[in-house]
Formats: sequence, C-alpha cells, structure tokens
Amino acid sequence: MTKPAPLSAREFDDLFQSVCNWGRWGPDDERGTLNYITPERLRAAAGLVRSGRSVSMALPINKVAGPDNPHPAVHYMVQNYDVRSDLGEPQFCMDFLACEFHGDCHTHIDALCHIAYRGKLYNGKPVDQVTSRGPMLQDITAYAHGIVGRGVLLDIPRLRGVKWLEPGEAVTGEELEAAERAQGVRLGEGDIFVFRTGHHRRRLELGPWDNSYAGEGKPGLHSTAMQLLHERRVAAFFPDGDGETVPSNVEGVAYPVHALQIAAMGMACSDSLQFEELVPVCEQEQRWEFMVVAAPLRLPRGTGSLFNPIAIF
Amino acid sequence: MTKPAPLSAREFDDLFQSVCNWGRWGPDDERGTLNYITPERLRAAAGLVRSGRSVSMALPINKVAGPDNPHPAVHYMVQNYDVRSDLGEPQFCMDFLACEFHGDCHTHIDALCHIAYRGKLYNGKPVDQVTSRGPMLQDITAYAHGIVGRGVLLDIPRLRGVKWLEPGEAVTGEELEAAERAQGVRLGEGDIFVFRTGHHRRRLELGPWDNSYAGEGKPGLHSTAMQLLHERRVAAFFPDGDGETVPSNVEGVAYPVHALQIAAMGMACSDSLQFEELVPVCEQEQRWEFMVVAAPLRLPRGTGSLFNPIAIF
Amino acid sequence: MTKPAPLSAREFDDLFQSVCNWGRWGPDDERGTLNYITPERLRAAAGLVRSGRSVSMALPINKVAGPDNPHPAVHYMVQNYDVRSDLGEPQFCMDFLACEFHGDCHTHIDALCHIAYRGKLYNGKPVDQVTSRGPMLQDITAYAHGIVGRGVLLDIPRLRGVKWLEPGEAVTGEELEAAERAQGVRLGEGDIFVFRTGHHRRRLELGPWDNSYAGEGKPGLHSTAMQLLHERRVAAFFPDGDGETVPSNVEGVAYPVHALQIAAMGMACSDSLQFEELVPVCEQEQRWEFMVVAAPLRLPRGTGSLFNPIAIF
Amino acid sequence: MTKPAPLSAREFDDLFQSVCNWGRWGPDDERGTLNYITPERLRAAAGLVRSGRSVSMALPINKVAGPDNPHPAVHYMVQNYDVRSDLGEPQFCMDFLACEFHGDCHTHIDALCHIAYRGKLYNGKPVDQVTSRGPMLQDITAYAHGIVGRGVLLDIPRLRGVKWLEPGEAVTGEELEAAERAQGVRLGEGDIFVFRTGHHRRRLELGPWDNSYAGEGKPGLHSTAMQLLHERRVAAFFPDGDGETVPSNVEGVAYPVHALQIAAMGMACSDSLQFEELVPVCEQEQRWEFMVVAAPLRLPRGTGSLFNPIAIF
Repeated sequence: MTKPAPLSAREFDDLFQSVCNWGRWGPDDERGTLNYITPERLRAAAGLVRSGRSVSMALPINKVAGPDNPHPAVHYMVQNYDVRSDLGEPQFCMDFLACEFHGDCHTHIDALCHIAYRGKLYNGKPVDQVTSRGPMLQDITAYAHGIVGRGVLLDIPRLRGVKWLEPGEAVTGEELEAAERAQGVRLGEGDIFVFRTGHHRRRLELGPWDNSYAGEGKPGLHSTAMQLLHERRVAAFFPDGDGETVPSNVEGVAYPVHALQIAAMGMACSDSLQFEELVPVCEQEQRWEFMVVAAPLRLPRGTGSLFNPIAIF
Repeated sequence: MTKPAPLSAREFDDLFQSVCNWGRWGPDDERGTLNYITPERLRAAAGLVRSGRSVSMALPINKVAGPDNPHPAVHYMVQNYDVRSDLGEPQFCMDFLACEFHGDCHTHIDALCHIAYRGKLYNGKPVDQVTSRGPMLQDITAYAHGIVGRGVLLDIPRLRGVKWLEPGEAVTGEELEAAERAQGVRLGEGDIFVFRTGHHRRRLELGPWDNSYAGEGKPGLHSTAMQLLHERRVAAFFPDGDGETVPSNVEGVAYPVHALQIAAMGMACSDSLQFEELVPVCEQEQRWEFMVVAAPLRLPRGTGSLFNPIAIF
Repeated sequence: MTKPAPLSAREFDDLFQSVCNWGRWGPDDERGTLNYITPERLRAAAGLVRSGRSVSMALPINKVAGPDNPHPAVHYMVQNYDVRSDLGEPQFCMDFLACEFHGDCHTHIDALCHIAYRGKLYNGKPVDQVTSRGPMLQDITAYAHGIVGRGVLLDIPRLRGVKWLEPGEAVTGEELEAAERAQGVRLGEGDIFVFRTGHHRRRLELGPWDNSYAGEGKPGLHSTAMQLLHERRVAAFFPDGDGETVPSNVEGVAYPVHALQIAAMGMACSDSLQFEELVPVCEQEQRWEFMVVAAPLRLPRGTGSLFNPIAIF
Repeated sequence: MTKPAPLSAREFDDLFQSVCNWGRWGPDDERGTLNYITPERLRAAAGLVRSGRSVSMALPINKVAGPDNPHPAVHYMVQNYDVRSDLGEPQFCMDFLACEFHGDCHTHIDALCHIAYRGKLYNGKPVDQVTSRGPMLQDITAYAHGIVGRGVLLDIPRLRGVKWLEPGEAVTGEELEAAERAQGVRLGEGDIFVFRTGHHRRRLELGPWDNSYAGEGKPGLHSTAMQLLHERRVAAFFPDGDGETVPSNVEGVAYPVHALQIAAMGMACSDSLQFEELVPVCEQEQRWEFMVVAAPLRLPRGTGSLFNPIAIF
C-alpha cells in the first residue's frame, strides 16, 4: 500500500466536524451509534445463526507484567479446599480479581466518557462531569443491555496476503472497501465492525512489544477511514489492538481514531480483542458476517469494562 | 404450599447418585450439562429472536458493604481529566475494579471447580487439583465461548400470586411443573433455566438482609427439584439468589443445590441475577422463552466470573 | 463536665486564624509542626527509654465490614505451601493486602494534603495541586524519616473515672490541663500528644457502631482545645478515634479539629490508634511520657498511610 | 575476594542443624531471635541516640512494573477535591493502596511462616498450619510491638572499595569480620544486622535488572556466614536485596539464606531496604551503630508486611 499523507491539525478538525454526531439523537443521548441498531437489524443479526457455533473474541485475562501490560490483572484465591466451612458439606473455593482494564492486554469496551477532545466529551458535554468519584454521565451502564447486532469481519492481513500488519501501518477507507470486495461483504447501517490487523497473531508469534509512542507503535486505522464508518452508519467497533495507528497520522493529535470515534461519533468502541479463534471459523463457514453479543459488566460510573464478546454463527 | 419434609443424609446421597453425570461426557469433560446445547438447539434459540429487544439479567456491581455484601466491589478512578497526557489531545479517563465475586450482591457464574462434595469435584476429580495458585482443571475458561441457548423463565411469585418468596421457602419440582403449566412453557433438553423467586424485588422494596445461615436465610429450590432438572436435561441454571433454600432442607448438608447441580450434575450455575427488567418484557411479549447469551470473562484459573447475561427477544 | 457552647462560623474563622501556622516555616514547608521536634528534643525523648519495653498503639488491620468499617481491608494469600517452586527448597508462602486506609478501623496517619479548608491546604496551597494522580505536594513522604519524639498520654476516661467517653462528648483545653495535673505531666513543645477517649475500649466491650454524622457520633476534642495545642507547640496528634467530636461543636463546619490541626496548624495527625495495651504499661510504670517512633510507609503521592506507631519505655 | 566453594546438600543440612534454634525458646515460640533483645539491650540501643537524627531505610513504594517488580503496587485516589462532602467544610482527599509485598522492590519484613524447609517451618511446625486463609501460627503479628534495638551497619562495598557488589558475589563470615574491623564495630547479641551490598545504589545508577534465577542474580551472604550470625546471637537481619546470593552457593537449595535464617534460626528478616540515605549519616557521624525502630503493620494472618524501618542517631 502507498503510505497516506499525514493530516494537518486543521484537516483533522474538519474531519472531526464532518463525522460529528453531537445532537443527532438528542442532547442527552448516551447510546450514540448504537442507536443505529434497530430492533429490525437486531432480529436480522439473529437470522445469521445457522450452524449453531459460538466463538469468543476476548483475550485471556493477562496477569503477567510486560512491555504492553504495565498494569497486570491481580488474581488470587480467596479460599481453597484446605479450609472447611463450619456448615459442613459441600465445600467451596473462591477467588478475587482486580484490574485496571484500559490497557492493550485486557479485552475491554470503552464508555463514551472515556475520551475527551478539546475539553468536550461526546455530545459536547464538559469533562468536569467526570470527577474522582467517576463519570456523572456517559458511563458504561449506557450499554447495560448489551451490544447485539451483525458483526462484519474485515481481515486486512488476508487482503494483503501477510500474517499481520506491522507497527505504524495504517488502513484507509479505500483498503476497507477493498477488503469488503475481496470477502464479499459490506459494512452497513447498525453493523459491528470487527477489524483485524493481526495484532494478536504477531504477539503470539513474536512475543509482546511496547506498542506505545515510546516504543514500536502499532497498526490501525487511518483517521480518514472514519468518513467511511460514518457514511456507512457503523454502530460499533471491535478491533484487535485498539484501532489506532501509533504513531498517529495527524499532527498534534496522538489518538485521532479515539477522538473521532468516541468523542465525535459517539461510537461504541472496544479494545484489544483477538480473532485467532474467529478467523478459522469464518474460513470454514466461508462467511465474514455473524451475530455478535457483547455485554459489559453493569458497573455504575465505570469508564469501561472488561468483557467477553461472542460471535455466533 | 405445603412445606416439604427434610431429607436425611442417606436420602441425599441417593439423590446425589441419581442425578450424577460423572463420566457421562468422558472422564476429563469440563463442560458438563452445557454438552446438552447442541448446534441445533443453539440455532433454535436464535430463532426465538423476533422483536429485536435485549435485556440484561445482571445486578449493578455493588460497592456498598451491607448484610448481604460483606465484600463490596472496589472501584476507583485511575486518571481523570485533571491530568493531561503528555501526548496532547485527546485526553482519557480510566478506572480500576476489584471484586471477590462469589457473593450474593455480584451477578456471577461459578466454575465447576467452585464446589466439592465429600472431597470430590464434578467428574470425581480430587480437590487437591485446586491449589493456592488456582484450579488446575474445571476453571471458568471451560465456558470461554459463552453460554448460548434457549432461556426459559419460571416465575414462582407469579404462580403463587405474591411479590416474592419469603426466606426459607423452597420450590419443589411439582411447583416448577405447575409454573410451566401456568406459563405455557416447558423446560427441555439444553435449556437455560431462569428461576425467579423475587429475591431482588424483595431487596429493592425492603432493603438488604443477612440471607446466610447466621441470618434470615433465603428462598430457593428444594433439593428434590434437581431430579426434574436432571430428567429434563437442563443445561444451565440462572437464578435470582443462588438457587439455595437457606436453611437447607437436607440434614447435614448446607448447600445441597450447589452440591447436586455443580458437583454431581456438572451444571453451569450462576448466582444472583435479577429479573426485574426481564419480567415486564416477558409480560409484554407474553412469552417466557427467549435467546440467552452469557459470557464469563476469560479468566485462566478462575473459579467463576462476574458477567452480564443477556436475554434477547 | 459542663457542655461547652457551640462556636459560630465567625468564631471558628477567628480560631482558625489564631492557630494558623501558614508561612511560619517558609512558604513551601511540608513538615509543619514536626519542625518543633528539634534534634535536642528527639534526643531527650530517647532518654525516656528506661525499662526497655515497646508497645504498639495500632489496631489490628480490620478485614470485616461493619458500621464503622465500610471499606474493609482486602487480604489474600498469593501462594501457599501447596504450590512448590520449581527451584526446589526452601518453599515460600506470600500474601496480598489492599486498603482504603482513611477510615475509623484502620490505624493511619494523614498527609497534610488530606484536608482542605475553604479551598486551601496547609500553607495556603490550592487544592488543585491534588489531582486524580495524587497530590503534587504535601504527600505522606514528607514524614518519610519517621516521627520520633516524646509521647505524652492524656487519659480522659481516667480523669473522669469512667471507662470511656460517650459519643458526642467533647474535651476542652481546660480538661486537658486537668488531666495533665492529675497525671503529673505537661504537654510541651515538640511533643506527640497521645489522646485517649476510650473509643476502642468502648468498641471492644459494646461492639462497633456507626460513628458518623448519620449515626451515633463519637467523642473527641472541642475545637477550642486547639488553642492549647497551639500555645504548647505540640508537634503531632495521636488519638483513638480521630480527634473529632461528632456531631461537631461548630456551626457549618463538620470536622473542625481536622481543619484546625491539619489545614491551619500543619500538624502531623493520625487516626484510630488504640491504647488498650499502652495504658496498663503506663500504669505499671506510673508515667505517661515515653519515646514514640512512628513511620508511615514511603508512599509517593500518598494522602496518608497505614502505620504501627510504637511507644517505648 | 576468593570465591568460596559451593556447599553440598549434606554440608548444608549439617549447617542447618548447627544454627537451628528449634525449641530454644519453647515449642510454641514465635519471636525467635528477637528473644535476644532483652529490655537491657533495648535500653542500651536508645542510649545510642546522641545527635537526634532519624533516617529511613525504606524504598519508596514502587508502582512501576519492571524486571525486578513483576507485581507493582496499585495506588489510586479514592476521592479528590473535585468532590465535595455533603457535610460542608473541610474537604478531604483519600487514596487506596494494594500490594503483593514479598518482592524485591518493596521494603518489607517476613513473618516466620513465610519460609519452609523440607516441609517444616521454624520450630518444626508443619506447613499445613498455613492455609488459603493464611497462617494459623507464626504470622507477622508476632512482631506487633516492633523491633527495637541496636542496629549495626556492615558496609561491604566500603570494605572492598567498590560502589556495589556485582550479582552473584557472596559475602562470607570472614568478610563480615573484616568489615567489623575496618569500621570499628562488632555485631553482638540482640543486634540488628544492617547488611549493605550496594544493591540499591547499583539500581539507581544502572537501572533495574532481573535479579532472579532466570536473570542476572544478585549479591548476598554466603550460607556459611550464618554460623557467625548464630554465634553472635544476632536478633534481626536488614539487608538491601534480600540477603541471598543468586545463584545460590548450595547444591539443590535455591534460597539457603532464607532457609537458614528463617526456618532454622527463627530470625526476624526483612527484604529490600536501602541505605543510600543512611550511609552519608554514618559517615558524618563516623559511627556504624544506631538505634533501630521497625514496626510491621499489625496484619492478622500476614506472612509479612510493608514497613519503614527507622535508624536513629
């Protein structure tokens, strides 16, 4: 692919405006692009279940510190079978989990309050609505009843004939359309866009790397691809990695994809999924569309949530 | 209802044997009764999606200590908009969640390793396979690809014409069958049994109470009802409360329902759901069957997981 | 004791000004009244060690939720002897501790940044120096090298001839002076004021109670007593309870003792010590002065710390 | 220094026996070598306070994952000044700390239950007294009233004329005696042995490294040096690093110093102190003895504790 030119700050602001959904579903809307998933589309998604298989798109929860996991999950047994309940049989074992989940090793979904651009959240809400006690609005409970719809996988390494995209490589809207043509699918209104760069495949084969600005970076979308997602009225974004190209293609904006998707568009965005179990099923079924059901924990004032999104064929 | 007589320890052991699935799906099986959910049944469950609505069956994560919540979830902001990233726009807020989730205020699912009866886990595995580093087998990752199937709600307060069952009241197999008749549904092979006692409704109206053996107790199933679930080949159990009647109806066995369902039957059991949003939908739709998709976090060596099970109509 | 009259908001502001140490040790001072502990006084404190006994003034870390412990400590084993290191002998067991320590069941010390009055921290610093990433100044590392000096116990229940003070009872400066006379000690410059209301004795005998404004309250100092502490140039304050009388004796100010001690005076204040092991030693030794060594954890950006202050005789 | 020869397993067992204190202070003793600190010696230690200075020997609590910090401390703000109490002034900020403290980046002390050799804890107690609920004996509360005594620093890099010892280098009893002579001090009964290899100095200058068996290792004591500590009746051990030479000098024993000190001798051992603030004070004072006061948190069933040990001159 030819490398697209970087955007200036001014071009980015124009792009932000052109994809902005503020006010589209009312001034206090918290569901954003999930509004595109009508009952009709949800029902149609269920109609995709034909072979009766379900596949997780989540990573195992990662407890090991590393270059891409500075905040490993903390997991301990609370009680084991060496301790007996006074009440007699049966006996129980229990555990405890703690996690700072906005990281590249934890499959999670972001609440709309997670991102601000120039002091504003989605729908133009001010950032002071998020305090040290948590967000007063746009928390993850806006997605409490789950994200249920049609998932469409666009597999960019498959299109390019490579195992994975290398850090820093960006995928444009044109390339997404090329993938659509190659796979015979088309992203449409209310769809859940499942975007594969091969990030996790690379990690499985080469080991973890520092994918931050201080390190090697990562592949992702080009900012301009958001125009396509906006036109197509995509409802949700489920990438491996987090969708960002690092370093960014926009001058002075470090995470342009987050800014556009979440702050401008109000899109339900998740991070750090994996599709290494999904891809073989798609290949066997020879289809890249399926029902998706993904349900964040009902965490009041949560800025996001660990979750385990499921593809159903 | 007439109060059923308590079981003797011997009668309980006979009951345990009569519903025991050890070896049924091979000596190392870890999916237990989920094996009843065939691709055909999963597909049929998706066929129940007709009106395109989804409803959560989870409680909000509870951060407030109380008589039924001795281990409240721990939830803090990691970073807020008062801190600016060195990288410039956009800005991020993030949080941290910690939880000992096997409690009556946290909607969760149990791994099969969570319960042992007389030193044995499901399939006769010894309890020493669970160490202080966690279970070596039967952890929650056995359910990684989600529990997807037909949910059937049996609403016992509706049958009895009460708002909720009182602590200590037990529901027999006969009463489950009466509820089936009243609602026009029938629990069948591979179904997810959604069992309502009104536990959460009572809590909403009267406030929390100590539902342990040291306190007032709670309503649940009678041990003998497990014969019905076994005969019907139920795949999973989704109750409000945890399905147990406290105090127990079995001499010398404190949690007989857990022992039978998990240790004997290998059933996918969850705890502490709520159906206060589900029931109105069922009433509107005039049906008590729906698609269920429930996905535990992929927690290696987890004895269970927080989750947010979704009913889809 | 006659009950002292409440203070008006205006009287309180006058009191605040009269005990205010802002600027006394320079505009960026973070040690506040610990500056009163000169090397000479520290040496003199060591001279009080005559019988060679040490006594803890800390509570056991409390892991049980209750009316005065809404955020119980979280403590789990990390690894036990059922897991063997690959490296062979010896074997290890390990644990994990988590705590929100500013509570009445956790013996802790406050950093000066912990309290603001009318938007100002000690020395007039603005509260925006404390962000969601923690305090930029006046954190607990200001006390990194420990608080070492002469402790003087004033035992108010002993003076009054009661087992403990009841919730809501306030101790005035006059009563502190009466206790000094009764015990034959005098609080002086650079001293650590060990203040006993019998809070923990009451808890041991009657069980925990809700000591907040929503509950029964607690005994403590009267706001006007801070004049005495200021005149005497007391360096640190080590109470059972947290020194506050709840409800407050000041109109419109809920925690006047904290406001005066920390925000105005810059005093090293700790919370929730216990003296049930200390008192018998004082009685045996017939002295109420001793060396104190108390060292907070070196927690960068900490607003306080769990600690275990030691009295040495 | 000539490199000492490794010990065989048999020689190690003989060494273990020769320094073993099992039964010395009774079969249920939990204070071990702290019994050597008599009231007389504690009083004498206080007599060392002459210049009135106190110095911390703790590291800052480390929140950053790295090769020697796989379990970074977890530290968040609970509430900040952007949230206002309903009760009005003053306002509060608070934080939360979580830590798995047995690691090389957290200054901590071990409980005697922390180490087992061939299935036995100190005093021959069986390891099954430590369950998933924690130790039933020999927990850290045995040290609740603090470790108070004479500290003696032996500074090996000073003796050798180097900045620090390199990983893998071992210090023998002979070298300890050479350091004593060079510094004009002598470790005696009831002393707290402050042992400097320069571990933290190296880390400050070269950055962190993997000091485990899988990595570069670390300098420490030679196993045979425990004979000297035993003969001298040393009460406690306060090293930078954890006292171990990694890799070990004993065939088949990975942590021989821990096995000897804790399991055999019942010595109060701490880990991962730093002396970079202590050494300049010793040099100024031209003395290597001082009062030490070190108090673990009173953590029931704790296998150790974070702490901040203080040297007083």
